[in-house]
Amino acid sequence: MSTSEIDASVQAELNRLRESIDNIDAAVVHMLAERFKATQQVGRLKADHQLPPADPARETRQITRLRQLAQSANLDPAFAEKLLTFIIAEVIRHHERIAEEAGNGTATTGQV
Amino acid sequence: MSTSEIDASVQAELNRLRESIDNIDAAVVHMLAERFKATQQVGRLKADHQLPPADPARETRQITRLRQLAQSANLDPAFAEKLLTFIIAEVIRHHERIAEEAGNGTATTGQV
Repeated sequence: MSTSEIDASVQAELNRLRESIDNIDAAVVHMLAERFKATQQVGRLKADHQLPPADPARETRQITRLRQLAQSANLDPAFAEKLLTFIIAEVIRHHERIAEEAGNGTATTGQV
Repeated sequence: MSTSEIDASVQAELNRLRESIDNIDAAVVHMLAERFKATQQVGRLKADHQLPPADPARETRQITRLRQLAQSANLDPAFAEKLLTFIIAEVIRHHERIAEEAGNGTATTGQV
């Protein structure tokens, strides 16, 4: 193969991989949109029924489970844990907004 | 309904939502495991063919696209962008390791 043929084949492979990455990113965005719909329902349910907002035991179970899933999928468990923590921080931000809108001024954390 | 019946129905609804959240988290972990497989192939491809590691134009396109997808899925575009940045930081960490293992000592950033 000439250099330009090699270049073209490498570029084609790079494009193929990037298309997969883009498809995966779209899937993740849509999964997370669905996740926030669920956590917002949890937030409202807890607010309506005066349930304690935080549930540390639930969070511990989630982290343990995600680390195990990551390990079996050959993903760094520490990364999976950091990612969950990152998402939970956003959930808490949402719940604070729900609480503010409900006018009770109490930050409802932990509906994760 | 008695108080305990309400409690049971609220708890059942909470459990139902949490099961969905757990299913979504498992899906996201598996999607990201697949994403890292693809970015590692990109890293190797670029290293093998001495392609420039960074591609800022690609990253800009990815962020623009993800923000649009997030908007249409009713997910905060700023959150989607933060998430992509968070994942890219991990990709860069992987690529630095690949580069170290290849012994060229050059951090290969940007295969995202």
